[in-house]
Amino acid sequence: MTTTTAVKRVHNFGAGPAVLPLGVLERVQAEMLDHAGTGMSVMEMSHRSAAFEAIIQRAEADLRTLLGLGAEHAVLFLQGGASLQFAMVPANLRPEGASADYVLSGHWSKAALKEAEKSGRVRVAGSSEASRFDRVPAQSELDLDPEAAYLHFTSNNTIYGTQWAIDPEPPARVPLVCDASSDILSRPMDVARYGLIYAGAQKNLGPAGVALVVVRRDLLERTPGGLPALLDYRLMAEHKSLYNTPPTFGIYVVGLVLQWLLESGGLAEAARRNEAKAALLYQAIDGSGGFYRGHAQPGSRSRMNVTFRLQTEELEKAFLKQAQAAGLDGLKGHRSVGGLRASIYNACPLESVRALAAFMRDFQKRSG
Amino acid sequence: MTTTTAVKRVHNFGAGPAVLPLGVLERVQAEMLDHAGTGMSVMEMSHRSAAFEAIIQRAEADLRTLLGLGAEHAVLFLQGGASLQFAMVPANLRPEGASADYVLSGHWSKAALKEAEKSGRVRVAGSSEASRFDRVPAQSELDLDPEAAYLHFTSNNTIYGTQWAIDPEPPARVPLVCDASSDILSRPMDVARYGLIYAGAQKNLGPAGVALVVVRRDLLERTPGGLPALLDYRLMAEHKSLYNTPPTFGIYVVGLVLQWLLESGGLAEAARRNEAKAALLYQAIDGSGGFYRGHAQPGSRSRMNVTFRLQTEELEKAFLKQAQAAGLDGLKGHRSVGGLRASIYNACPLESVRALAAFMRDFQKRSG
Repeated sequence: MTTTTAVKRVHNFGAGPAVLPLGVLERVQAEMLDHAGTGMSVMEMSHRSAAFEAIIQRAEADLRTLLGLGAEHAVLFLQGGASLQFAMVPANLRPEGASADYVLSGHWSKAALKEAEKSGRVRVAGSSEASRFDRVPAQSELDLDPEAAYLHFTSNNTIYGTQWAIDPEPPARVPLVCDASSDILSRPMDVARYGLIYAGAQKNLGPAGVALVVVRRDLLERTPGGLPALLDYRLMAEHKSLYNTPPTFGIYVVGLVLQWLLESGGLAEAARRNEAKAALLYQAIDGSGGFYRGHAQPGSRSRMNVTFRLQTEELEKAFLKQAQAAGLDGLKGHRSVGGLRASIYNACPLESVRALAAFMRDFQKRSG
Repeated sequence: MTTTTAVKRVHNFGAGPAVLPLGVLERVQAEMLDHAGTGMSVMEMSHRSAAFEAIIQRAEADLRTLLGLGAEHAVLFLQGGASLQFAMVPANLRPEGASADYVLSGHWSKAALKEAEKSGRVRVAGSSEASRFDRVPAQSELDLDPEAAYLHFTSNNTIYGTQWAIDPEPPARVPLVCDASSDILSRPMDVARYGLIYAGAQKNLGPAGVALVVVRRDLLERTPGGLPALLDYRLMAEHKSLYNTPPTFGIYVVGLVLQWLLESGGLAEAARRNEAKAALLYQAIDGSGGFYRGHAQPGSRSRMNVTFRLQTEELEKAFLKQAQAAGLDGLKGHRSVGGLRASIYNACPLESVRALAAFMRDFQKRSG
């Protein structure tokens, strides 16, 4: 098995699905026709086979090591992305008649609220929409319901490029629910603070089609009877994510990403790398004398998605076109914010960020 | 890119996830680091990118060609497997207060009924459970509700090894809903007969984590308001399966399987190959003088899953052990039936079936 070093790879700044560690892709490639001597691809093996059991059990064990999870948390590998979690969280955790609190810090927290509204009572406990989500709300701005079924927030806002430096603090007895789709495993997490953490895989964990849920086991008792089986946290936990056929290949790739994270120093090292990468880009913005203008207020800046604008849309178009030609891909901002966005998740290599920072300085010189 | 011809591949008779065409795996392997000159893996590209749009559009077009689908049918690539469809079909197609008819021909049709029962009225329109699902019910045995929201059946019963030679005929104005998870694209289908066809991908279509739904567009008008977005056929159809991030890599592999089916002669040729493969195994059973005993009654025999028993469980254990040693994998029957099962979906090569038939004769000689 020779992997072709001549393969041309772009610098991938896409917001998700996003770049994966090269070593993970090479391993997937090498094992494509024969995984671990089984004589078959992971795609071809039974989810009840010993070989796949080993894959999913190791993935869970490695996740537990990385996050420092104990027996009080269940780990689920589900389908339907974060968007299905928007419905599953209230279906499982919000009892009949109860209300849930949502902090709005961007597009995805609004989407989570909208799904929860379909099936019961919700409250907006805080919002930064008035300033176009250029920051996350401060704790002092939150209006929290001490009887809420849970408090939901989005830890990183992909579209606006903001991130909570310190998570919101819920009232006593109100479980904190975190959509960590775009920053999970990018830094250490104090898991004891959360009732439930969920994340679509396609930014920091692996390929699209896997959704990770970490849930405190006592909350599983809230799951009501009569839910569709695939929406039932308790059932999925009882079956260790193997109630039906899970997305086996996706879980395998997630497992390889977790191994890579462990081998490269765990979450403290990941945080260090991510801060260094983000600093390179924020320095390029802040040192540009106003040529580049960050969207996020400095106190809310994301280490995962760096959003910025230029003075004119023409200049932004020129930037994108020349960046693309220079092998810098996926830099177009979301249509709701415009401008530019560099997504620099865990697997985005430092060399890609260096190449972008150099390009930014160079583009400014040529356009100045 | 050299694919190693020295790789050892087993003869894979697993019931699903199941064997994939070798050429498809080799293509996936070759494109792992750089798909079509994009400089990234399919796993790493945005679902809104031109490259992925081309992948999903070609997959849909090839499926339409294979099945002869017209504009009156929508094609959806969803998540959650057939098990989520068990809940989505009644949630979308059964109006408040209405009842749906289910024909029970095995484990999975019972599972579909159970999910539908959770949320509304159902009727059992026929069942072959009395004879341990060794056949599918005859049309004359069905007790059909002319006012049913739909008539649901399972076209092939993986566990019992039975298959409908001719589909049940619903009353006028009752849409026929087919769980075709284990025989879709294994033979031509008269798609005009169906209101909705669904299938988990992991038997005949590709990897686990993709569920295919083909639905007559007029039925989308039945979808009620307020469903979770991911369970809403109409919403998913409006967004052409891109409401949220779909399982991009799985759809890509499904697309390659569809290309392989087209290039190898379409569904008529697939049916011819599948009949020839099944005939080899049924001949081995029928010609064994009772040494091998088929579970399914001859008129209901499946071309996808060949189920059989030996005289004793000891003999079955010896068969499995020696088969495994001979590179014949995945032959253990489902625990609810016992015995042996050879799953010989589209991608199972004739040479694997020949090897199994030869092994069966040889094993009988050695044990006779």
